[in-house]
Amino acid sequence: MKASIIIIGDEILLGKVTDTNSGAIARVLDPAGWQIGDIVTVGDEREEIAEAVERALKRSQLVITTGGLGPTKDDITKGVLTDIFGGELCMNHEVTENIRRVFALRGLTLNPLTEAQALVPSSCRVIQNRYGTAPIMWFEKDGKVLVSMPGVPFETEGMLPEVAAAISERFTPDSEVSHASVMVTGITESALATRLEGYEASLPTGLHLAYLPQPGLIHLRIDGIGAKGAGVSERVAEAHRRLLDELGDLAILDHEASAAQLVIEVMKRRGLTVATAESCTGGNIAHRLTMVPGSSEVYVGSIVSYANDVKINVLGVKAEDIEREGAVSREVVEQMAQGALRVTGADCAVATSGIAGPGGGSAEKPIGTVWMAWATATGTTSRVFKFPGNRSRVIDRASTEALLGLLKLT
Amino acid sequence: MKASIIIIGDEILLGKVTDTNSGAIARVLDPAGWQIGDIVTVGDEREEIAEAVERALKRSQLVITTGGLGPTKDDITKGVLTDIFGGELCMNHEVTENIRRVFALRGLTLNPLTEAQALVPSSCRVIQNRYGTAPIMWFEKDGKVLVSMPGVPFETEGMLPEVAAAISERFTPDSEVSHASVMVTGITESALATRLEGYEASLPTGLHLAYLPQPGLIHLRIDGIGAKGAGVSERVAEAHRRLLDELGDLAILDHEASAAQLVIEVMKRRGLTVATAESCTGGNIAHRLTMVPGSSEVYVGSIVSYANDVKINVLGVKAEDIEREGAVSREVVEQMAQGALRVTGADCAVATSGIAGPGGGSAEKPIGTVWMAWATATGTTSRVFKFPGNRSRVIDRASTEALLGLLKLT
Repeated sequence: MKASIIIIGDEILLGKVTDTNSGAIARVLDPAGWQIGDIVTVGDEREEIAEAVERALKRSQLVITTGGLGPTKDDITKGVLTDIFGGELCMNHEVTENIRRVFALRGLTLNPLTEAQALVPSSCRVIQNRYGTAPIMWFEKDGKVLVSMPGVPFETEGMLPEVAAAISERFTPDSEVSHASVMVTGITESALATRLEGYEASLPTGLHLAYLPQPGLIHLRIDGIGAKGAGVSERVAEAHRRLLDELGDLAILDHEASAAQLVIEVMKRRGLTVATAESCTGGNIAHRLTMVPGSSEVYVGSIVSYANDVKINVLGVKAEDIEREGAVSREVVEQMAQGALRVTGADCAVATSGIAGPGGGSAEKPIGTVWMAWATATGTTSRVFKFPGNRSRVIDRASTEALLGLLKLT
Repeated sequence: MKASIIIIGDEILLGKVTDTNSGAIARVLDPAGWQIGDIVTVGDEREEIAEAVERALKRSQLVITTGGLGPTKDDITKGVLTDIFGGELCMNHEVTENIRRVFALRGLTLNPLTEAQALVPSSCRVIQNRYGTAPIMWFEKDGKVLVSMPGVPFETEGMLPEVAAAISERFTPDSEVSHASVMVTGITESALATRLEGYEASLPTGLHLAYLPQPGLIHLRIDGIGAKGAGVSERVAEAHRRLLDELGDLAILDHEASAAQLVIEVMKRRGLTVATAESCTGGNIAHRLTMVPGSSEVYVGSIVSYANDVKINVLGVKAEDIEREGAVSREVVEQMAQGALRVTGADCAVATSGIAGPGGGSAEKPIGTVWMAWATATGTTSRVFKFPGNRSRVIDRASTEALLGLLKLT
């Protein structure tokens, strides 16, 4: 069965805010057997919202909208939905109670604008929002369902399990969807595609191989769809086994993982602890590793030595080497990695020192120059990279290479 | 004039990848006077892409698509565009040269699949992609323009200035758009909306006030649109001045800024340096601060003391206090902040220690409990927070509160 997602908000159309709600919704609907046909983002304009909703209701059995439910004047979704589904805006006492509860928890007092959030179309069923004040509204018309959710990602993500359960109760999808992933390194996307031509041609109907390249990694995903109970997940599992055989050592993991998750999984398996010493990556490697639940079993911490004094005083880098070679140099980054091992007591460490821009570049060391060193008790290796792109890209790419380099330590 | 954006890719529909291209495109088109009517995401399916393109060409003078141009088999955009705009797929020698150049730079050798990227519809004009192998294709039909760009964000972002210049040359927008922002703290969105009711009512036609709440901050944006040369930007500037007067001390900055940018700007103005000591935030505060260009004038670094040994050995936290009070406690977090001041020599420091989950919670200290301390040479203050939500949300909210707390130090 088909589903459509509509994201409402000028801030997203203008590129001021990145939409993450559609992804969160998709990650819940897809495994439940829904095919997401499209995601449409429209601004806070009555006609645009109305047109997007009418169109989605034609295309799909299920429509989920997010946004346009706040207490301020630029939020008009409720009026549009009342026009489409009928009824009139009425004060809902349970919603009022919920708003009072949320405000009390936050230690705030109510005002008339917030109270207006309790006005809901009489044509909808309310699912109480346990994470905020905007009510979740469930509409039905001609066998189609529209669920209106809040724009705040935290509220929508928090309420998704409850909304998904209500959807499962209402619909019994007639198709089944299954996915399996392999993470690959050490080969380009096109060389991999050439190598897998025969494998792809051999895939049974309903199965499809998708390439999702990331810097230094390729995520291969087998997507399967078929009638419910017709063995789709078994066929995907079989294709997954064959893919792993076909890839041999190129496959580093048999499920989806980010570079940081790979490091945590592989190091946990090897029983090793990790530390970082970061200059140009400024804590991003530490952040990525510590976003992985359970990372504390592997990761002990980082010295983010942004200033040279911190490199010298905390990591023990020699001031004369910074003076002579510059902070972005093999000598300095190797001392940083060794210093991180020493002060944290970890089994392995990676250090970064580079020029992320927009300032600081020179002819000899242009923006994007990043020195990295990986150290263990038995030795230190180092390498210089030249990354293209802006500050954020240089930091991101350098962090990924630093992580992937840890996987090569033995 | 109206523009539409189409994002092509199963990985985005399935929520495996977050689209950032539409935002990058919007941030270029909006200031150039384009009204972005909608952003539509569709999968790698011929009919879906064709329908989205036909519809966008009806709605808008300008359509920009991204994605579906890679060398692998799931990319079919080129065929769809040939069907719509006519012509046939022909080998383009300049594109072949560009692919060779990019591959040589990356030290890779060509293969037949990559060479097929040089096949382009004869109906398009090619803009060479200086950041990758997929050519950018410019189509025209009945006075409308469609530009097909790559899906890889780095390539699309890199090529946007050149594409925007070509668009400006081709079109002369008849309307003008202007924006101005104010960052506000210390008030709820609804209380702020009540306070600004009179102000909002007084705004001239074509001007609109948008509320973009973030944790601990509200971003107010004045949006203005009008005929070219009719003084829209002057009216927005005047409304901006009046808004700043109206808000007084609630306004902490007269332009858009993240919490990290606020810290860097305010501390630079005060001539103070900042350090961090992070346990549960795991380097995220350091990462956010160092993403700000020029942050090295203010920020000296962080001790990410994820393991207790690092708290003790690097920051000088007393082992017996960790033993007695636990790592998530006032005693420990205050010693962490003081330790960060001592080892980095910064003027002020913030430290975090908490339970981000999913593991580690207890009845006394549930998941979301975060202790924070802010230290200067003259004293240390601390506070405990209970954040709702999952690991990523706890880390994010704690980082924001830590940053906003730095602004209160005097």
